[in-house]
Order: sequence, then C-alpha cells, then structure tokens
Amino acid sequence: MLFAGVAELVDAPDSKSGSGNRVRVRVSLPAPTRNPRTYLKYCSQCGRPVQQRIPPGDNLLRYVCDACSTIHYQNPRMVVGCVVEKAGQILLCKRDIEPRHGFWTVPAGFMENGETLEQGAARETREEALAEVRMGALFAVVNVVHAHQVHLMFKAALEGDAFGAGHETSEAAMFEEGDIPWDEIAFPSVEFALQRYLEDRRRGETRLHVTEVARRLTRR
Amino acid sequence: MLFAGVAELVDAPDSKSGSGNRVRVRVSLPAPTRNPRTYLKYCSQCGRPVQQRIPPGDNLLRYVCDACSTIHYQNPRMVVGCVVEKAGQILLCKRDIEPRHGFWTVPAGFMENGETLEQGAARETREEALAEVRMGALFAVVNVVHAHQVHLMFKAALEGDAFGAGHETSEAAMFEEGDIPWDEIAFPSVEFALQRYLEDRRRGETRLHVTEVARRLTRR
Repeated sequence: MLFAGVAELVDAPDSKSGSGNRVRVRVSLPAPTRNPRTYLKYCSQCGRPVQQRIPPGDNLLRYVCDACSTIHYQNPRMVVGCVVEKAGQILLCKRDIEPRHGFWTVPAGFMENGETLEQGAARETREEALAEVRMGALFAVVNVVHAHQVHLMFKAALEGDAFGAGHETSEAAMFEEGDIPWDEIAFPSVEFALQRYLEDRRRGETRLHVTEVARRLTRR
Repeated sequence: MLFAGVAELVDAPDSKSGSGNRVRVRVSLPAPTRNPRTYLKYCSQCGRPVQQRIPPGDNLLRYVCDACSTIHYQNPRMVVGCVVEKAGQILLCKRDIEPRHGFWTVPAGFMENGETLEQGAARETREEALAEVRMGALFAVVNVVHAHQVHLMFKAALEGDAFGAGHETSEAAMFEEGDIPWDEIAFPSVEFALQRYLEDRRRGETRLHVTEVARRLTRR
C-alpha cells in the first residue's frame, strides 16, 4: 500500500509518549484542484510541498522546493491557428467545448512540444476542422497577457474541398466576408486576426500585425 | 515532523503480522532531479506519483495524476530578444552563464507571465546589457523544435549611450558589422537573427523571417 501526498508523523518510537516501536501517521488528503498552470502545491521532482519566494539572483516570485532545490518556472504558452481561405470564403468552427462554447473561431490551439509553429497550426486545423491546408505567412501576433498566452495566426489555403467538425467542434462552415458572425466570435484574438486578414486582402498586402488584447475587446 | 514524498506502509494494525496499533512506514528519498520541464514524477496538485499515458480524447502522451485527475500539459516556451543598434553598431553580450558560457549573444531570454513579447525583449535587454531601448519590429521567428522553444527577435534602437554587463553577462560591447565574432556566437537562432537583420539593413527592408534551426547550424 502506498500513501501519497504528505504523511505527518504523529507519534514515533523515540518520542516521550511513544511506546516500543509504535508509529502513528496522519496522511493529508489532496487539496481541491486549481489551475495547475498557475498554482503549484507540491514539487514535481520529489513530491514535497513547494513555497513561493524570489530565488537568489532572480527578481520574480517562483515556486521553489527547499527539499530538492528545484525552481518551478512558469512561462506563457503559444496558441497557434490559421485563417483558412478557399475561393474567397473563410473557414470557421463553432466551438463544442468551453470556454466560449457555441461561439465561432478559426482553427487554433495550444502549440505542442516537438512541432514548429506552422506544424502546430496545421495540426489544429486538421483536428478541429478535419481540413488539410497549405500554410502561408505568419500575419498576426496577439499578446494575451492576462491569460499568459501569445496567439500566432497564419494565412492558409484549404487543400481540396474536405472539411468538417472535429471532436471539439459542433459545426464547421465556409463564410463569405459579409456573412461572418462578428457578434459570435469566440475570442478577441480571432476577431483581430480576421479583421486584419480581410483588410490586407482588400489591399493586396501581407503584413505582420502585432497587438495586445485585453480581457474584453472594445467593439469596432 | 513532516515526511515528504511517498510513505510506504510496511506493517499495519489490521495486517496479519501486525500487533496492536503498531505501524511501520518506509519513506522514499526524493529521486535525483532531472529537467523539471520535461520530466515529472509527482503531481503538483496533490503530491502523488504521476503516470505517462494518453488521456481520453487526446492523442499525445501526457503526465496524468490518477489520484486527482490533473493532466500536466507541457508546451514550448518563448525566448524573446533584441538586435540593438546605435550609430550602425550592434550590441552583443558575452555570456557569463551556461549554456554556451563565454560565447556572444544578443540580449534574449525566457518570456515571463504578465508581459508582452516586446516587454519581455526590452526587460531582457535591461537585465543582460543594462540598456534601455526603443522597440522596433518583430523580424525573426525561429522554431527550435528539439529544445521546445520558439525564439522571437525584435529590432531595437539603443536609447542614450549607456550599456554594460548585467549579472548573466561578462562583457557587453558594440560591434561594427565587419567585427561581429561569427565563430563565437552562442546560438543558431542568434546567428540567424543577426544575418537577416544585416541583410535587411543593406537592402533597406523590414521583413519577417521564419525558420527552423537544428541542434547545430551548418556554417555559412
């Protein structure tokens, strides 16, 4: 049998109230789960409790383990996606998961270890929209500071005609520019990418747009 | 007294060989520390051992905790930096830390939670080169797949004349293009950024360059 977490020694053989080799232990139940991205309670390397403090030579609060000296750095993540076009129409996916269930997005998701930005964006398009794409230029970079994310959006062209609803999508559809459901777009970064994409298309340009979005985007 | 890690119950009151309320525990010592970015042994939320498996609905191997159901996702990190110019010269820093101790780099480092890409690049320049800069365009994006990193490099102009060696730097200096120590550049992504920066400067262009570098860059 294995106890996990922290076992507190209540009574030990060498303590005054102990008798013989009697040992009593109290095992803590695990705490309710919070966001494991931002909240750490135990060291992933040795399992002991971590503390928050500024390590020597650093200037930011980190989770540190005093038992094995591991510093648990936390850094922003990348979300990679595509604005997919075919015959002038744009591919959008209706989200079948939280957050923003039921709202429309371009195919996008967290970049994984072992892939490039482009490969990640193409993979997300395959997973969410069941679509194969020819990747184009990186054209939008959105700092989503409050969420500890950077969103990176590529131009892409649909290869063939096939697309559909992947397992995080309830509906995938091609939209003419005038039919894009602006009031039902899931995230400010998606709205920003779509707007810049369409503006650049009208102008015949490919530019890099870098911005920062707040928790709520002011309506155009 | 607190035990950390895993306490194994060797003998318990209700076991056949037990006597009275005698309990013996064996506490595992922590494992030697490996890279906590890629190797997890315990759950950061409840402290119990994690396993590697593909969660339902996923297609990648993750560290998961069967006790509290936390999935510990691991994703690439961003390194942000600047090519800093003043009067045609480029600011380089000689590294006073591993990896690549003693080699030259542009100011760059891991992006932190709570900042934009630009803010991170400016902060690294302040920390490593004691320099204030006016940020310019994002011009180089380098996928460093084997290291689970994406390096994002900005143009920047030195504000004022002050610069110096920060605490991770043994020497900071301004270089004419012809004096850049190409054989002593710390990382392929830095070499890529410097080359593209200088090429674009000769052409009077600002473009976005996206590439992928292998563990060793082939010499030009």
